[in-house]
Amino acid sequence: MFHDECGVFAALDVSGRRMDASRLAWYGLFALQHRGQDSAGIAVNNSGTIMCQRSQGLLVEGFDEVVLNMMQGHAAIGHVRYPSQGDPGIENAQPMLIKYRAGQMALAMNGSLNNSEELRLDLQEKGAIFQTSSDAEVMLSLLARNRIVTDNIEDSVKMMIDSIRGAYSVVMMTPGKVLGFRDPNGIRPLCLGRLDDIYILASESCAIDSVGGEFIRDVKPGELISISASGINSIMTVSPEDMKPGPNAGKLCLFEFVYFARPDSTIDGSNVYAARDKAGRLLARQAPCEADLVIGAPDSGLAAAIGYAAEAGIPYGQGLLKNRYVGRTFIQPTQLQRELTVAMKFAALTEAVKGKRIVMIDDSIVRGTTTRHIIRLLKKAGALEVHLRIASPPVFYPCFYGVDTPSQNELSACNMNQEEIREMIDADSLAFLSLEGLKASTSGLKCGHCTGCFNGVFPAGVPHNQESVLRKINQDDFFNSNSAGADKNV
Amino acid sequence: MFHDECGVFAALDVSGRRMDASRLAWYGLFALQHRGQDSAGIAVNNSGTIMCQRSQGLLVEGFDEVVLNMMQGHAAIGHVRYPSQGDPGIENAQPMLIKYRAGQMALAMNGSLNNSEELRLDLQEKGAIFQTSSDAEVMLSLLARNRIVTDNIEDSVKMMIDSIRGAYSVVMMTPGKVLGFRDPNGIRPLCLGRLDDIYILASESCAIDSVGGEFIRDVKPGELISISASGINSIMTVSPEDMKPGPNAGKLCLFEFVYFARPDSTIDGSNVYAARDKAGRLLARQAPCEADLVIGAPDSGLAAAIGYAAEAGIPYGQGLLKNRYVGRTFIQPTQLQRELTVAMKFAALTEAVKGKRIVMIDDSIVRGTTTRHIIRLLKKAGALEVHLRIASPPVFYPCFYGVDTPSQNELSACNMNQEEIREMIDADSLAFLSLEGLKASTSGLKCGHCTGCFNGVFPAGVPHNQESVLRKINQDDFFNSNSAGADKNV
Amino acid sequence: MFHDECGVFAALDVSGRRMDASRLAWYGLFALQHRGQDSAGIAVNNSGTIMCQRSQGLLVEGFDEVVLNMMQGHAAIGHVRYPSQGDPGIENAQPMLIKYRAGQMALAMNGSLNNSEELRLDLQEKGAIFQTSSDAEVMLSLLARNRIVTDNIEDSVKMMIDSIRGAYSVVMMTPGKVLGFRDPNGIRPLCLGRLDDIYILASESCAIDSVGGEFIRDVKPGELISISASGINSIMTVSPEDMKPGPNAGKLCLFEFVYFARPDSTIDGSNVYAARDKAGRLLARQAPCEADLVIGAPDSGLAAAIGYAAEAGIPYGQGLLKNRYVGRTFIQPTQLQRELTVAMKFAALTEAVKGKRIVMIDDSIVRGTTTRHIIRLLKKAGALEVHLRIASPPVFYPCFYGVDTPSQNELSACNMNQEEIREMIDADSLAFLSLEGLKASTSGLKCGHCTGCFNGVFPAGVPHNQESVLRKINQDDFFNSNSAGADKNV
Amino acid sequence: MFHDECGVFAALDVSGRRMDASRLAWYGLFALQHRGQDSAGIAVNNSGTIMCQRSQGLLVEGFDEVVLNMMQGHAAIGHVRYPSQGDPGIENAQPMLIKYRAGQMALAMNGSLNNSEELRLDLQEKGAIFQTSSDAEVMLSLLARNRIVTDNIEDSVKMMIDSIRGAYSVVMMTPGKVLGFRDPNGIRPLCLGRLDDIYILASESCAIDSVGGEFIRDVKPGELISISASGINSIMTVSPEDMKPGPNAGKLCLFEFVYFARPDSTIDGSNVYAARDKAGRLLARQAPCEADLVIGAPDSGLAAAIGYAAEAGIPYGQGLLKNRYVGRTFIQPTQLQRELTVAMKFAALTEAVKGKRIVMIDDSIVRGTTTRHIIRLLKKAGALEVHLRIASPPVFYPCFYGVDTPSQNELSACNMNQEEIREMIDADSLAFLSLEGLKASTSGLKCGHCTGCFNGVFPAGVPHNQESVLRKINQDDFFNSNSAGADKNV
Repeated sequence: MFHDECGVFAALDVSGRRMDASRLAWYGLFALQHRGQDSAGIAVNNSGTIMCQRSQGLLVEGFDEVVLNMMQGHAAIGHVRYPSQGDPGIENAQPMLIKYRAGQMALAMNGSLNNSEELRLDLQEKGAIFQTSSDAEVMLSLLARNRIVTDNIEDSVKMMIDSIRGAYSVVMMTPGKVLGFRDPNGIRPLCLGRLDDIYILASESCAIDSVGGEFIRDVKPGELISISASGINSIMTVSPEDMKPGPNAGKLCLFEFVYFARPDSTIDGSNVYAARDKAGRLLARQAPCEADLVIGAPDSGLAAAIGYAAEAGIPYGQGLLKNRYVGRTFIQPTQLQRELTVAMKFAALTEAVKGKRIVMIDDSIVRGTTTRHIIRLLKKAGALEVHLRIASPPVFYPCFYGVDTPSQNELSACNMNQEEIREMIDADSLAFLSLEGLKASTSGLKCGHCTGCFNGVFPAGVPHNQESVLRKINQDDFFNSNSAGADKNV
Repeated sequence: MFHDECGVFAALDVSGRRMDASRLAWYGLFALQHRGQDSAGIAVNNSGTIMCQRSQGLLVEGFDEVVLNMMQGHAAIGHVRYPSQGDPGIENAQPMLIKYRAGQMALAMNGSLNNSEELRLDLQEKGAIFQTSSDAEVMLSLLARNRIVTDNIEDSVKMMIDSIRGAYSVVMMTPGKVLGFRDPNGIRPLCLGRLDDIYILASESCAIDSVGGEFIRDVKPGELISISASGINSIMTVSPEDMKPGPNAGKLCLFEFVYFARPDSTIDGSNVYAARDKAGRLLARQAPCEADLVIGAPDSGLAAAIGYAAEAGIPYGQGLLKNRYVGRTFIQPTQLQRELTVAMKFAALTEAVKGKRIVMIDDSIVRGTTTRHIIRLLKKAGALEVHLRIASPPVFYPCFYGVDTPSQNELSACNMNQEEIREMIDADSLAFLSLEGLKASTSGLKCGHCTGCFNGVFPAGVPHNQESVLRKINQDDFFNSNSAGADKNV
Repeated sequence: MFHDECGVFAALDVSGRRMDASRLAWYGLFALQHRGQDSAGIAVNNSGTIMCQRSQGLLVEGFDEVVLNMMQGHAAIGHVRYPSQGDPGIENAQPMLIKYRAGQMALAMNGSLNNSEELRLDLQEKGAIFQTSSDAEVMLSLLARNRIVTDNIEDSVKMMIDSIRGAYSVVMMTPGKVLGFRDPNGIRPLCLGRLDDIYILASESCAIDSVGGEFIRDVKPGELISISASGINSIMTVSPEDMKPGPNAGKLCLFEFVYFARPDSTIDGSNVYAARDKAGRLLARQAPCEADLVIGAPDSGLAAAIGYAAEAGIPYGQGLLKNRYVGRTFIQPTQLQRELTVAMKFAALTEAVKGKRIVMIDDSIVRGTTTRHIIRLLKKAGALEVHLRIASPPVFYPCFYGVDTPSQNELSACNMNQEEIREMIDADSLAFLSLEGLKASTSGLKCGHCTGCFNGVFPAGVPHNQESVLRKINQDDFFNSNSAGADKNV
Repeated sequence: MFHDECGVFAALDVSGRRMDASRLAWYGLFALQHRGQDSAGIAVNNSGTIMCQRSQGLLVEGFDEVVLNMMQGHAAIGHVRYPSQGDPGIENAQPMLIKYRAGQMALAMNGSLNNSEELRLDLQEKGAIFQTSSDAEVMLSLLARNRIVTDNIEDSVKMMIDSIRGAYSVVMMTPGKVLGFRDPNGIRPLCLGRLDDIYILASESCAIDSVGGEFIRDVKPGELISISASGINSIMTVSPEDMKPGPNAGKLCLFEFVYFARPDSTIDGSNVYAARDKAGRLLARQAPCEADLVIGAPDSGLAAAIGYAAEAGIPYGQGLLKNRYVGRTFIQPTQLQRELTVAMKFAALTEAVKGKRIVMIDDSIVRGTTTRHIIRLLKKAGALEVHLRIASPPVFYPCFYGVDTPSQNELSACNMNQEEIREMIDADSLAFLSLEGLKASTSGLKCGHCTGCFNGVFPAGVPHNQESVLRKINQDDFFNSNSAGADKNV
């Protein structure tokens, strides 16, 4: 339901022998394509000269054999993007490659800065010009200035990290190095792997797996990894006293587990598939339901549905079909009924649901419009009851850290209470997993969570211009509605 | 694992009022896209003049608002195609539109003729020329000749059916009518529906559902449906004495249930999802297995896996991930290991399978190469054992009726026995659903089955040039191999 | 001003050694691109198997290195096309490749049949189907039938020529031969050349020159050239008594000299550039003019203008500029004045024309609308007088032989007399070259002329359905108008 | 022979009423397309917000109705580009649009800076980053810094002009204004026009004519034109004492007359067509020749050839044909002779040249390779003698001001003397117009000339890194070669 954010990948052969780093990046980005389908880009370092190619659409649309053959080099960084901020358009595609005081530098990021507007104004006051609306350009402009006072790229990154606020996982490339770093809260993921002499940085471990590499460890919150011919170097960009100690050090975005990340990835010690399965099991305990069949909303609710069914002892089944050919081009229905647009995307499996009481599991509710249509499909197909269970808490707040959530005006949980949502989508009952439950589902997680979209606690703050706009939501009012449907079966 | 065949759709507004028949065809074909992704085409009748548009690739690539706006008309037929015979290329795309003695005529077919080579030679002897390698052109050439001796299009179709042999479901359009017919064995599906004043013919019921129409009934084996302003007319093209009586009248392709058809379709009385679920359950009884987890090979094995798990009382889970962005363009791995190509498409969910004994359900085995790679992925991810259960019998024979199976040289079951296949794919055990079991899974089916690919019984015969090539397979030899793996756990 | 018609090319290496015949065809067609820009196609014979590739637009858009590399073969035929009849669309693109009784056959033609409608109806009565509206398909259907009664391809062509009427130059390819023939009147051109062991057939000699070949001779009216491994063979398809004797044997289209052909081509003994130069000189004698400068309407009037200037002793100059980037896509002027569309294409050279009396030479007048705009441009640029001289007679009749002239309703000379046209285009005087003058310009021509569009004498007849529609024009009424402008300066 | 440079266009409706400024820019750029075919761009101001669209290839390829309809606004600037410096690629396409201290700003330039490398290094030292290799980005970076010390955009431009060296004609757009300026030497052209309430700036007057506008005057060397709702303002950016007085103020590039500019343009008082005609006439006096026919090398030599013929009293004719369909895609000749590539582009008109002594006029000689092939074509076609006359002096030096001349290593006049060139190209004689003659041809010119490429006098200096590389050419050595050919007929 949520749109994806971005994915980054980087690789450098410390032996300098293999010249197919861009090809490796291609494979890695292919495994990260779920994190962004709007544009893709790869920058490659050929003997100290960096070239960069970016294109709109899927990776396979912009990069074929011919393009990759022209991109020989022992190091590469890459990016897939969903425009979580800034205009769409090739200008904002990444990696961004610049020339500055110290030569060439390329950078690609996943995340969002909270103080980018202030930083832009400040840089502009000093004469900077901006050709894009991307935070990557702000970072590059800061880094270029920092290099005036330091010859050391790592120091320059540390200086930049001191001045920026937000959530970001970044990969960079200079003629001699590949670097990667994660914001002090570690809100967005980044991990380190290895394939022979090649060190790899990637948004998710699935990208390391997909190139046949070996996962080493997650990059730590606030850590800067610097890779060059002389090997790998770890630098903490934040002083130890500024880091929170213990298991709550770091605030990884919980939504990575709810929706973003690929199930086969393990982030900061917690496996995504396992977390979704467990979320479904906890949901079954928190919000049980008398029913004949558990189904998942395809595709994002399937893993939790399997867990729910196992825990509840209710048979699991497939109740809905998602058309695999739904893409970016659609035909408007004119004379035909408007429902055709939904009917194009989803179909109910009549034989599976007819005459049955259904529990449908979805990963989250944002606007609720598609959910309403799906429930209508199920009832038309003969489902006696449809009980909706959401494997995460209601989304009460927008995300400022790189996730494309709508504003509070469009978030259903900001404008209706639980019972009103249930009525709107015509479910027989509705329940959400508690925030504690969601946290508990990420077993093994070696750090804390960012739960901003659920409870408004934003570990890296919010943009100044959003502070006054942000509406505090009283969750008691949301949950304590007198719900006839809830009475019936929760 | 099998490639899809073709899908057809037709619609005519008997009131002549609605002019968006091509748009209706677009929605119907979109729901049939799983039956063919290589080309798409729509022919529309605008006040007696037929125009036709065909394009390579997906429906959405060739037909947008601009194209559909130019295609006004009260009747339309459409086609999506996977090239089961003939060269790929826009020339072979359908519908095929011709001008002949009686004016314009468009035709689109799903299936394959056995005697097309003889028919072509005979027609060529009489002066016919062929611009494509498609059986649709053979049919049109025959129909044009038949019209010399009859003014009646329905009689002409009957004459043609007398001369052709094979499996076919065809939709046609003349300036005054839309017609549809099914071969006397009813090997390929075709059904009839209605939306207000519009009669619809479609390969599968899901296409009728997807346009908001009402399913009326399946077209009978050997039946010709003729739709015009004066309504709908049913004609039997085969004399009653030639039709086998009772429940075995008709020989519907069993593979529609195994793989082709969309789960929400119901064909000749049997629902596809229900059949797959039941096939899984029967498989659990026929080939039980001590294991910790049941998984399906994505996506074709999921429905049967759910049924297997329910019947066996073993937990169902997701063990494999299929990359949604795999398309037609790939990058060759050069220096990188060849496994990357499989790793691009599939990933094992380590957390789900590690330390477990796995039963994996797949719909069928053709060559077995992908299966081998998948099992390797699962074992690498820590699966203790992988027991493969196939929800259909071994494929011993190629299909001559429109399904793109490889020759017997490439069919694994023709060249190895069960135990040898098990060894090749490195499964801990391997078992197939019996043919009786597969038949039993299609409960509610109002006709018999074509089981040619399983047992070599081809109800409409085989092409002459194939008769001598076809190798009879001794199934006893296949199954009665001394299988260590099978001993262990079947 | 006239649209171009088609161009054909064929080549066969009698030694069978060189495999780049399709590449040779590419170069030849590139030189013939002026004869058609709507589609291009090449068929190549690789060891007896013919494959064909066609594409819309210019040759360079559809055929690049990759495509040509896949088209190896020792023989090829090719075609560039402007749709003089039939719908545009890839279906009508040529060469057309069929399979028939005797195997494969490809054909490409320049010209038009007068009795194609009758032939189609007759073939349809016998059961033929047509997938295009092209005369090439009619020819192929006839040839396929003829092969029933003769095993000889040359006899089959002769039989076909007996049954068709019209203007045509055709190249064909079978697994063993390349053939070319010209209609009995020789209305459309075709010539024969040689490059080492390769025999070449082409619409114009410039195509032979452009591949570095040597011109041998023109194909004779009614002649069939058959080229195979055993060399070249000439067959007359018309009995000698049916051929008119003497210099008037053959009726070459005069418009080839007026507009179509490339200036460096020589057709039936008469060079195109020389003919245009001489037409200009004769025009200067027939329609002298007191003026300061002779200019040509770019580009079609330039050659005649140079001749006119030389003969008249008036300085020749450039008075108009044609924008080289005018293509098929245009922007509509909305708020801007409509004249912008013409201003895009043409600009007057103010310095050259200001204060001068101008004679402008154009090759022909069809509708006259562009001419009016050009004269307005010249006068706005300061030309004192603009005297228009046309290097051909008025076009009173449409062409039925492959030239895309408008109907008589749109031909200005059918609806206005000379003086009315002069007024409409606002010229100070207007005169045409006489038909005798135009004939005389083609010095060296070894045959007669088709002058149908000028005087309504159509050597190969007109289509039946046009006979009644055709309006006989009284040329005296056209010329003997009381023309004030003509009085002044003719 | 020379590649084109760039063209710029700008328009602002002072009344603010008309919203089709981008459409006007489209028409203007279409008339300037001869100045650059590699990329095109338009920026438009819609109520204070500027958006920019750029695309590779021709204007018509990137901008259609759909695009222009999205680009409403009362002011626009545009650019067509041939990459005279910097890499090709969409990044370097112009206009370049930035955000900086004072808001948005777009800029497009024709020309080249000599000190851009120094400026880049200096700006980088201060922290600037560069995303392109374009001088436009350097200008924008300078302007952004200047705005720190001045609130006035015109002052900022003046400051920038103080720091840059080179040849440039620039158009700019801010939310409130459109500006245009020309370097102090006025090396590249820029002129001012008007259409109703719309003021227009354009590289050449033909662009003003083509939109139906009225030419007002040329922008003066060193002049800055500022256009806003309050009208038009002229500011001299150079102090009067720094400007040379009298008729030699300004140093317009002579090559605009030789090759670049469109013949219907008038630049700084001198019409391009008239200049070429006069150059041909002066060449006839300086280098007469006994011959039968004067021809021009198409298309750049035609105007001078007409003048030469008129002055010499030798008939003018067309001797060569240029294929209009030569584009950017070519097929390599492999087995075929290499000459095919030239034969594709040019053909000799045998009838026109055979048995004749030819004088061929070309605009210039750079490498001489194409000329050699053309002369071979003419001789093969039967020309008895070919005397080459060049309507400009030899090119001894590269251009540093925006013209894409090759280095001295590739300039034929730097590596051979006149007689050696004559021999290399196999001309019977060779002569050049003197520099004095070329200057004299630009009658009416209100300023001086830049003659750098002819005599090495570069009014705006040369880049530092070129100073040492530049080889001084002794012209006496070049001309005083003992030329047998020249003896014969000069």
